[in-house]
Amino acid sequence: MILNGRKVAKEVLIGLKEKIQKSVEKPTLAVIIVGSNPSSISYVNRKVVKCEEVGINSMLIELAEDVSEKKLLSIIEDLNNKKDVDGILVQLPLPKHINPLKVTETISYKKDVDGFHPINMGKLLLGYTDGFIPCTPLGIKTLLDNFDIPLAKKHVVIVGRSNIVGKPLAAMLIQRKTNATITIAHSYTQDLKSITKTADILVASVGRPNFITADMVKDGSVVIDVGINKIVGTNHISKIVGDVDFENVSKKASFITPVPGGVGPMTIASLMQNTFKSFQER
Amino acid sequence: MILNGRKVAKEVLIGLKEKIQKSVEKPTLAVIIVGSNPSSISYVNRKVVKCEEVGINSMLIELAEDVSEKKLLSIIEDLNNKKDVDGILVQLPLPKHINPLKVTETISYKKDVDGFHPINMGKLLLGYTDGFIPCTPLGIKTLLDNFDIPLAKKHVVIVGRSNIVGKPLAAMLIQRKTNATITIAHSYTQDLKSITKTADILVASVGRPNFITADMVKDGSVVIDVGINKIVGTNHISKIVGDVDFENVSKKASFITPVPGGVGPMTIASLMQNTFKSFQER
Repeated sequence: MILNGRKVAKEVLIGLKEKIQKSVEKPTLAVIIVGSNPSSISYVNRKVVKCEEVGINSMLIELAEDVSEKKLLSIIEDLNNKKDVDGILVQLPLPKHINPLKVTETISYKKDVDGFHPINMGKLLLGYTDGFIPCTPLGIKTLLDNFDIPLAKKHVVIVGRSNIVGKPLAAMLIQRKTNATITIAHSYTQDLKSITKTADILVASVGRPNFITADMVKDGSVVIDVGINKIVGTNHISKIVGDVDFENVSKKASFITPVPGGVGPMTIASLMQNTFKSFQER
Repeated sequence: MILNGRKVAKEVLIGLKEKIQKSVEKPTLAVIIVGSNPSSISYVNRKVVKCEEVGINSMLIELAEDVSEKKLLSIIEDLNNKKDVDGILVQLPLPKHINPLKVTETISYKKDVDGFHPINMGKLLLGYTDGFIPCTPLGIKTLLDNFDIPLAKKHVVIVGRSNIVGKPLAAMLIQRKTNATITIAHSYTQDLKSITKTADILVASVGRPNFITADMVKDGSVVIDVGINKIVGTNHISKIVGDVDFENVSKKASFITPVPGGVGPMTIASLMQNTFKSFQER
């Protein structure tokens, strides 16, 4: 069964739109992009379009590749102080002369709708519920909940340990109230297959096409594919694929996310949810 | 082979003492205790004694069981503002009328030598090295390093997911530079034995005597026992035991920590290290 993220995201966004329509003031999301990386531009545009769809004001701030770190930080400070800005997002990756950690820590944790600030990460790990949860883990949770896929007493194996997916996903799921068993593996894990085969829920976030093959997956498991990889086919036409060999793994999995149309739309929907959450706490 | 925490802790403390002797000013650790829970008093006393041993000034603040939350928070604020106080520690557990999360978040993260503040927890998870690492995970790391036990490409299974041991230990070990595979299991994990048996390094932090039995352990694995359980023998004499059936597990393990004398002394040594770290950054 396909975990149709596009459909669930749409439902989330419709719910959000209705709530925003009822409100006199509107939430505002500030999106900062540095330079002209084509993927970054495409991501940012998609976020801006979604804002419009649900009735969130977006404020797009485009900065030159060579903007100084100091200038960027002062722009963030200004946004921190603006009462009518609910969320601040700096599109990654940043040019090498800018320290991404400094940027993350400068964004007020109360407007950190990406959930990357150490305070929000720490709250997530400690089980506090008043912080922001990074968008991809939150989107995965919403998707699983939507299909009534239980986590309690399940073994969740996460392949990948990035600061934006693997780590916060583990932090979110490690909680007593979730009551799952969590393994965080990666491409260097010894005999990875022996671990992934024990997963009731397998999350792939490695960034390599066809990394997860059918022999690595338990029959009837739930497979969540976070990968977004651009590959060029023999016909010279490029397409987006995930980390999972969808064709073969889908024959064994009970539920599986497609790429595109799985986790991706859920991630953007979560960003809108986080922005609205911040707006409610204005 | 026994991982003698008492011996390693002693070496750590001697090293620290030498450094502190060379310094004109001395580090100061403020220890707050609320009420008169006998275990808490015993823990606090042990910490104060260790401070004296290494040359750290300790400031013991004893508050009545019925002290108001407001009063406690204002005492913490005062300590935050004192330039010559390097570390602030509030002994847990706290009486029910005091919110422990509020207490944790009130302690300045720069003096949070217990490493429980969300910022320090978040930094640990994100892989930043400028925060404080909670004392038990840090002590375990120091102990393993001291015996040259490698973590890279090893499977570490942590049984227990508390905010003071399991979660920060997982956060510390999840990093790319450590390159281990981490599983966080617990007493509700389905078929726990099948998971613990795959552990190269098994950490038990459950709080139940003899929870980890020999059949749950792989031959040649490293077993770290974080448990501190008081049991009363048939002779009515109480003694402290860990979570591991030491007698039988020690026959299979390549390395094992005793209880007492394993992780416990390392935890206190780490507290002294964290206090000194804070002092250096005064």
